[in-house]
Amino acid sequence: MIITLLTDFGTSDYFVAAMKGVILGINPNVQIIDISHHIPPHDIKAAAFNLLVVYKDFPEGTIHVAIVDPGVGSSRRPLLVVTSKYFFIGPDNGLFSYICEREVSCHIYHLKNQEYFRPPLSSTFHGRDIFAPVAGALSKSINPDNLGELINDYVKLGQLALTQLDDKTLKGFVLHVDHFGNCITNITREDLTEMDIHRGVKLVVNQYEIKSFRKFYTEESTEKLFALWGSAGFLEISALCNSAANLLSIKPGQELIVEKL
Amino acid sequence: MIITLLTDFGTSDYFVAAMKGVILGINPNVQIIDISHHIPPHDIKAAAFNLLVVYKDFPEGTIHVAIVDPGVGSSRRPLLVVTSKYFFIGPDNGLFSYICEREVSCHIYHLKNQEYFRPPLSSTFHGRDIFAPVAGALSKSINPDNLGELINDYVKLGQLALTQLDDKTLKGFVLHVDHFGNCITNITREDLTEMDIHRGVKLVVNQYEIKSFRKFYTEESTEKLFALWGSAGFLEISALCNSAANLLSIKPGQELIVEKL
Amino acid sequence: MIITLLTDFGTSDYFVAAMKGVILGINPNVQIIDISHHIPPHDIKAAAFNLLVVYKDFPEGTIHVAIVDPGVGSSRRPLLVVTSKYFFIGPDNGLFSYICEREVSCHIYHLKNQEYFRPPLSSTFHGRDIFAPVAGALSKSINPDNLGELINDYVKLGQLALTQLDDKTLKGFVLHVDHFGNCITNITREDLTEMDIHRGVKLVVNQYEIKSFRKFYTEESTEKLFALWGSAGFLEISALCNSAANLLSIKPGQELIVEKL
Repeated sequence: MIITLLTDFGTSDYFVAAMKGVILGINPNVQIIDISHHIPPHDIKAAAFNLLVVYKDFPEGTIHVAIVDPGVGSSRRPLLVVTSKYFFIGPDNGLFSYICEREVSCHIYHLKNQEYFRPPLSSTFHGRDIFAPVAGALSKSINPDNLGELINDYVKLGQLALTQLDDKTLKGFVLHVDHFGNCITNITREDLTEMDIHRGVKLVVNQYEIKSFRKFYTEESTEKLFALWGSAGFLEISALCNSAANLLSIKPGQELIVEKL
Repeated sequence: MIITLLTDFGTSDYFVAAMKGVILGINPNVQIIDISHHIPPHDIKAAAFNLLVVYKDFPEGTIHVAIVDPGVGSSRRPLLVVTSKYFFIGPDNGLFSYICEREVSCHIYHLKNQEYFRPPLSSTFHGRDIFAPVAGALSKSINPDNLGELINDYVKLGQLALTQLDDKTLKGFVLHVDHFGNCITNITREDLTEMDIHRGVKLVVNQYEIKSFRKFYTEESTEKLFALWGSAGFLEISALCNSAANLLSIKPGQELIVEKL
Repeated sequence: MIITLLTDFGTSDYFVAAMKGVILGINPNVQIIDISHHIPPHDIKAAAFNLLVVYKDFPEGTIHVAIVDPGVGSSRRPLLVVTSKYFFIGPDNGLFSYICEREVSCHIYHLKNQEYFRPPLSSTFHGRDIFAPVAGALSKSINPDNLGELINDYVKLGQLALTQLDDKTLKGFVLHVDHFGNCITNITREDLTEMDIHRGVKLVVNQYEIKSFRKFYTEESTEKLFALWGSAGFLEISALCNSAANLLSIKPGQELIVEKL
């Protein structure tokens, strides 16, 4: 059984280890895998993106725990999301929004059963006191119905899908800027086929036009800025040996237009 | 069986991996958990604090290896500390001082039996050559008496407990400044009851007075600086979206006065 | 079974976790150990050094996966290197050059069998799509002959051994600068015996002369700069509480002369 952790806790303090200790105290046979603990503090969208693009690489039954939780201690709800193959645990603030939008089936539970929390419940560290012990319990096949109650609503981030403006034009946005400065858009291969690219496509972002498409980063070309299919399945805007985000002054959320020629 | 690692080695070099390789070569069935490798270089007190607040979150029998070791290669002694539930391995420089002060029973061994060291013994990397292989041996249930000899003394940091000045006044200090700038004091719930706080308490630190107590960080309040019970069980001085340590010019070790009104 | 990972991916993004998920999906019983993910981007020599000095600390049969791969997506070959005790997986760009130079027996395979790759094969992330799944397969005892075909050539970095200039003089170089600024040379105990050091040795580097040898860092001495045997088995040039690399303006690759007096 595998539990993954994705947080903005950093790795200087004891926070992540406390969660691991609590989990292993409940189930010593679990494997704990770090996705990242270096999400920018409070950046829910960055965490949501990273989780979206990696969760399916783990085996069926994996429990993904994601904690970027500026509202810890307030009334925001702790959640368990159950899809056909995975479990997700974390606060109700949009972290699982992209995943729920894409999954056919999502059962969402409000974690209420304090029996599975670590006492005494602090108001500053629900990672250790709620999310870790619930993940530990779940890894021992506790039924989700015992952990909380089914709910129908959850906090949503903006939608992931492109907007069709007309036959030839789509509106999208920059989902994420990675630490190389690559700008990962929300454009997928379903939005833009190989045939479309073969016929010609223009991306317009921040008044720049990008018409060059590459297969890999170091492909020979004279174009400084180009698009390529990133490993996460989204179209990325990149610059060779440079930060496309800096060159184009792009931040996450930046709107862009796709014109099929 | 779980072995945790807490060091100031950073994660850029091979140091931590060498320790893990050595441990797994001795006992492939052990789970190795990183507490942190980003303790500020040579900062024994920061390591002692992080270990103190997390060690009990691990299952009974866990072996905690802590290495912040500016004196490596000199005559400082390598130690094994055995408490009722845990093992601690590392150099004799105060790393386990807070824990021994709080635990009822501490047996302290000077690790002397070179049979359990990794040859050739270097004079610069006892993490790999002494502490890792001894932890590996211990995880295979080697008796501590075979690893070294019982001693009665060990290097102590300043005491963790508050000093009672009079009926209404206590003297404490700042134990740790975390990377958000929260100042974690040595004040516990036994020093300051809910009743005390209800009646009113004033903290005086660096000529500032703090009278506001919160339950969680984002609680609505007009006070910029406030105290709250941190997740480690100590009272913290915090500032919303700001570094309390910077605002108050506080460094670890800073004295503070608690006045019960 | 143990698989280690050494990359320049950093730990902010999902890249490392994707590799782990893929491996665990193939073989849930494997232990995955991080060597480092903070190799400077594209610094093949730094990765080659770190791997060289740590690989033997792991148990026989360990699979070492190393990915610093600026040429990903181009025609550079994916390799499997099999030595008498270990497996190495990564791109053909010199990463395993130092190891092959030192090992008596190295069988090198060009990984060609796409059956063991993760579909669809991206052109930007072979860590997830080639190296991780091949490591997973190998951990389940797939025969290397099924993974690719034996080859005789591979990309080599400059040789690791010293050059003998005359009876008393050797020419070497700085192999690596660690994050404390210690300059790790390619001089080993076979090049420079205790007897040589006892008789007197002078290191000349960047017009500086170093004649002081220490056993450990904090040994008392008046010399600011000194040499000592580092934990990796190479002679290091160090400065107490200072960066020798900065003091001497040394970068990796810097030539040095060893004069036996």
